[in-house]
Amino acid sequence: MRVLICGIDGYIGWPLALHLESEGFEVYGIDNFSRRRNVRNVGAHSALPILSMERRLDVVRKHSGKRIKFLHGDLRKYEDASRAVKESDPHAIVHLGEQPSAPFSMMNCKHATDTQQNNVLGTLNLLFAIRDNAKDAHLVKLGTMGEYGTPNVEIPEGFFDIEYQGRRDRLPFPRQAGSFYHLSKVHDSANIALACKIWGLISTDIMQGVVYGSRTQELADYGLNTRFDFDQVFGTVINRFCAQAVIGYPLTPYGYGGQRRGFIALVDSIQCLTLAIQNPPRMGEYRVFNQLDEVYGVNELAEHVKTVADTMSIDVEIRPIENPRVEAEEHFYEVAHERLRKLGFRPTRSLDEELGIILGDLLKFKPRILSKKRLIAPTITWRGQKKVPPIITEKARTMEVPEQMARSSMT
Amino acid sequence: MRVLICGIDGYIGWPLALHLESEGFEVYGIDNFSRRRNVRNVGAHSALPILSMERRLDVVRKHSGKRIKFLHGDLRKYEDASRAVKESDPHAIVHLGEQPSAPFSMMNCKHATDTQQNNVLGTLNLLFAIRDNAKDAHLVKLGTMGEYGTPNVEIPEGFFDIEYQGRRDRLPFPRQAGSFYHLSKVHDSANIALACKIWGLISTDIMQGVVYGSRTQELADYGLNTRFDFDQVFGTVINRFCAQAVIGYPLTPYGYGGQRRGFIALVDSIQCLTLAIQNPPRMGEYRVFNQLDEVYGVNELAEHVKTVADTMSIDVEIRPIENPRVEAEEHFYEVAHERLRKLGFRPTRSLDEELGIILGDLLKFKPRILSKKRLIAPTITWRGQKKVPPIITEKARTMEVPEQMARSSMT
Repeated sequence: MRVLICGIDGYIGWPLALHLESEGFEVYGIDNFSRRRNVRNVGAHSALPILSMERRLDVVRKHSGKRIKFLHGDLRKYEDASRAVKESDPHAIVHLGEQPSAPFSMMNCKHATDTQQNNVLGTLNLLFAIRDNAKDAHLVKLGTMGEYGTPNVEIPEGFFDIEYQGRRDRLPFPRQAGSFYHLSKVHDSANIALACKIWGLISTDIMQGVVYGSRTQELADYGLNTRFDFDQVFGTVINRFCAQAVIGYPLTPYGYGGQRRGFIALVDSIQCLTLAIQNPPRMGEYRVFNQLDEVYGVNELAEHVKTVADTMSIDVEIRPIENPRVEAEEHFYEVAHERLRKLGFRPTRSLDEELGIILGDLLKFKPRILSKKRLIAPTITWRGQKKVPPIITEKARTMEVPEQMARSSMT
Repeated sequence: MRVLICGIDGYIGWPLALHLESEGFEVYGIDNFSRRRNVRNVGAHSALPILSMERRLDVVRKHSGKRIKFLHGDLRKYEDASRAVKESDPHAIVHLGEQPSAPFSMMNCKHATDTQQNNVLGTLNLLFAIRDNAKDAHLVKLGTMGEYGTPNVEIPEGFFDIEYQGRRDRLPFPRQAGSFYHLSKVHDSANIALACKIWGLISTDIMQGVVYGSRTQELADYGLNTRFDFDQVFGTVINRFCAQAVIGYPLTPYGYGGQRRGFIALVDSIQCLTLAIQNPPRMGEYRVFNQLDEVYGVNELAEHVKTVADTMSIDVEIRPIENPRVEAEEHFYEVAHERLRKLGFRPTRSLDEELGIILGDLLKFKPRILSKKRLIAPTITWRGQKKVPPIITEKARTMEVPEQMARSSMT
């Protein structure tokens, strides 16, 4: 079975490629390296050092004798999207090739428009490329649970049956996303649903919870890392908390910390994407999966990280800070997520087991995190003020940054 | 009161400018002339000849002594959006500056992406320009009733109160638009709602029915025309039917012709936009109006045009053709539209009176319609096949095209 991975160089793309390759899939990838570029542009780097794509592919070739085909291309160009689809002649296409950061999209007008341009127009190009070259291929598209926002009713998997003014219909569940990034995924979902309706394309739109983790089986086998971001722009909450814990920087829930979200470990995200690929919907179907393992509150996560860190003799302080976002800090949150379970999804490890692995991996690269300590505190605010929040603790402010790490040449 | 009109050169923008000017508003406009360019690029022209913006503005100045300020600018550039907002220092901004054609957006990948780029990113730039320069200004944004699609329940004005799984919430009504153009407006609506939420902007998002008509009071007073498109790309159903009637081309409902939509006359669209401007929502509110007069089925409209044409001794044939779109041809359709009525909206004329005026205006320019007869039949299909539908009647095919009109230099 042939699979095209758009965004193969990313946090999820790369371990997915290795997993599919090890499962016997023929893997073809496309990436424009915009994630590496954007992370560099905000002055940050991955906590775990990562190889160039060329060297990654070399390692795979030496290890398995198999060749992952790669196109350095950009979905913002129809020609590149079309070439990738044509050359890979895929049974399934996994589209992870988007700008993935909410804070990045909220920095200023240029970042907001760049994010929607990259994500919305890139996906449109890909849809046309599929229509023109591989109409029967199954598009597995990475959306986000953030598309739904935090409504006061249970969130179904994409659609819901309602009664309104005495009549009934099955309708898309309303989206109320909270950033221009999250909205780009909302726009994608609507564009993909139309493409399925009018052209008969088939797609699974994955509303994924926040992903955390540093390791999958294949990453360990190959001795490779996937990227692990912890800065205010590209890091997500659990990974950030773990990086903060490792360098003795207080964990920083935003506001009251009562925000509840769905979460899933990296290894389980890949398990789920693989299940989606192996179980395509019927022709013309636009299907939505809510891809998460458990729902947690942010304060609860901070406590989990503190508890696990304690067992590793890492001393952790929790210090809430002013919320840079505009969001409810206490709210109802329930999410239906049965469809992937019905296809066989079973979480690999408990949250605490996973946290232990992450902390262990990060401890080895503590100086890389320390060297970018100044990029941890959020300065990007949803309301657009240009202010820098107060440094949290004297301890964090005065920590030593090893000079050689600040000059590290690794990405 | 100062008003900025984005898209002042368009079908609605121009008569709105004249109306607001005559009502004592200070009017400032911006346009990039993309509508003129796009119409020219598909080989078509306006049935009613229109002057250049420069000459239009001259006529206004000579007639009223007042000056409408105009910026030749492009909302796809933040700098232009920002300059327009800064220079006009508006109390209200009416945003009509979008690519308005569904068939245009369905021609190919480039047209789909160009449409979403122009509309979605243009609106994003405008939102940032308002945030940065005129945070208290009221954004009146032209959306479309097409954002909602044709659900099997009544369509409320933007939001609805529902009960689901035993809990209640007020949610945005789900959007199920039927073209990449209509989706661009859906994306806009979501982006605007977020801008209101996080920045406290205030906006009225107008879900407008299909507009028809050739005349407003001010257009007649000034002896000016607004554009009137009738080709397959830029013409909308009632205007197209009238143009077809005038040249003896059969009226062409798509498929069964049972599609029901909301409609509003041009003069009433302008009445409603003016009411929205005069009655802004409260700070930070994102408000939705369904702006239509009546709901009609397409076959019913064809019959109305035929009946009115009969009274003017115009012989009309109705000949359904294969539907180039993907849409339900028989469906439930009910739309709440109370909010503008509550602000005082009263339709100016009956549909049949308006049809009589349109037919009368068009009769004077019959040769201009005849000369573009080949652009009436739809060749752009939603499914993307590249086929030309059969010519409808022998009569239509063999009609004479006056040579001098084909070479006309008017837009």
